[in-house]
Amino acid sequence: MTAPPSPPTGMMVGTCHHFALRVYYEDTDLSGIVYHANYLCWFERARSDLLRLLGLDQRAAYEAGEGAYAVADLAIRYLAPARLDDVVRIETVPQEIGAASCRLLQLAFSGKTLLAEMRVRVGFVGADGRPRRQPARWRAAFARLMADTTDLSRRS
Amino acid sequence: MTAPPSPPTGMMVGTCHHFALRVYYEDTDLSGIVYHANYLCWFERARSDLLRLLGLDQRAAYEAGEGAYAVADLAIRYLAPARLDDVVRIETVPQEIGAASCRLLQLAFSGKTLLAEMRVRVGFVGADGRPRRQPARWRAAFARLMADTTDLSRRS
Amino acid sequence: MTAPPSPPTGMMVGTCHHFALRVYYEDTDLSGIVYHANYLCWFERARSDLLRLLGLDQRAAYEAGEGAYAVADLAIRYLAPARLDDVVRIETVPQEIGAASCRLLQLAFSGKTLLAEMRVRVGFVGADGRPRRQPARWRAAFARLMADTTDLSRRS
Amino acid sequence: MTAPPSPPTGMMVGTCHHFALRVYYEDTDLSGIVYHANYLCWFERARSDLLRLLGLDQRAAYEAGEGAYAVADLAIRYLAPARLDDVVRIETVPQEIGAASCRLLQLAFSGKTLLAEMRVRVGFVGADGRPRRQPARWRAAFARLMADTTDLSRRS
Repeated sequence: MTAPPSPPTGMMVGTCHHFALRVYYEDTDLSGIVYHANYLCWFERARSDLLRLLGLDQRAAYEAGEGAYAVADLAIRYLAPARLDDVVRIETVPQEIGAASCRLLQLAFSGKTLLAEMRVRVGFVGADGRPRRQPARWRAAFARLMADTTDLSRRS
Repeated sequence: MTAPPSPPTGMMVGTCHHFALRVYYEDTDLSGIVYHANYLCWFERARSDLLRLLGLDQRAAYEAGEGAYAVADLAIRYLAPARLDDVVRIETVPQEIGAASCRLLQLAFSGKTLLAEMRVRVGFVGADGRPRRQPARWRAAFARLMADTTDLSRRS
Repeated sequence: MTAPPSPPTGMMVGTCHHFALRVYYEDTDLSGIVYHANYLCWFERARSDLLRLLGLDQRAAYEAGEGAYAVADLAIRYLAPARLDDVVRIETVPQEIGAASCRLLQLAFSGKTLLAEMRVRVGFVGADGRPRRQPARWRAAFARLMADTTDLSRRS
Repeated sequence: MTAPPSPPTGMMVGTCHHFALRVYYEDTDLSGIVYHANYLCWFERARSDLLRLLGLDQRAAYEAGEGAYAVADLAIRYLAPARLDDVVRIETVPQEIGAASCRLLQLAFSGKTLLAEMRVRVGFVGADGRPRRQPARWRAAFARLMADTTDLSRRS
């Protein structure tokens, strides 16, 4: 037997995180297209995968009582519908990494068609529900990521 | 036996639609609060109830091939978390009713606490997936609703 | 202004809990009917409402570290589809209340049509994830409920 | 740039379909574990992927008016909880392929731990909502699959 299948895993290209998923029955509604709220779930999967690729463990942080991200605000435009069995590619670009929050741009594509575009701000929240600074090693990982980008852009 | 329970039903107060729901396990995530995407579902329930109270039948329109609403864009701010068993009140205020789309303001409260605030634009879409004018009787119902409001505001 | 709308609330008729909900877009899939997994969410809402009517506070129990119910097993038959805007009535009949688990029969109707029939066993689980006895006041509330039924059936 | 990431894709090993996914925030509830109804969604993703690997196009069949599968009944046992970031492997074994319906056994694992075990029967349903025979090329594909298995088991 060859290696068993892996769960979906994204990759970084510079500071852009790439992720892919497929549309299932659960994602659609009776109008035959993907229900609008499900894009928010997809984008959250991509953000979680980005953290995982940076070596940041959301579950350990939560279980250690450090806290977790909560969405502070978002704006999304729906440009084209996705349908059952479509392959959807998600691109996530961190735009600003602050002490306690991050702003990201997230795009969903089917082939070359832009399906949706979302700007989202997530804030780090302690176990008490109050905003707090992100763990130091998280900020360090983001700083390295953003520095890498600068290098990349200089080289190109 | 007394009358059996009814499904949740909202009411209009002027042009403001009021709706209420309760938070169940399915709405929460491991951080103990409601998952952010679920507010979009709640707000959509309220918009569907508003249409129903206006006598507009989404299912009949869809089955007759007239079309359905699709969310064009939205912006939402999350101000406070909701938790299991909370009663959440949704207020929906139509802001602009155009030929082919509507803009609405939607608020979610727990007691007097504002949980989330969303501005959303929904467009009417034909069976072919293209934008089209809303059915005439829908526009008439909205026009009556908005006229009622003007009267109300004059009186107050 | 009259009283604002209430969230959906069920009622007990003997040991049978009655609950009602409406089908929204989020519940349907592209085949135009309710996605099968959503019945499990609906039945869970009804079980949560039953506990609430008995005066048992799931959130307080969880936050106090006492534990929560987890579904141990279930079997469901789907007999007829539900569609957008349908009113669905849920009936829940406790069948066996043990020290650490409960067995219930749950039915979903649209009008007189039986949509689905589920037998489910839920077990009480401590904060450590291990099965444990239900809180004493919970067992007492169930015992009173089951005793009431016996009385009812004698009278009928 | 190397190849962009792919959506999750399963594989057949004899008649057993293997699939993998990761647990995201949307899958969990406030008790910190995966909400029970979500396993039904996961198992449905695996069945859809199995069809896709057999070259059977659910969306084309639906759009051509041939019909779609609907779950007729299922029984599931929950044996251990899954948590955020867990990799969950799904195994699907067709057990009986009839003219109009299929019975399958589906298992979910985390590492070597069996999380859940489901027996499900899905029936093919026409656009009119009535049971009908599966498309001929679907039955042929299943027949080839089951024949392959027999060969495999003879060899082992």
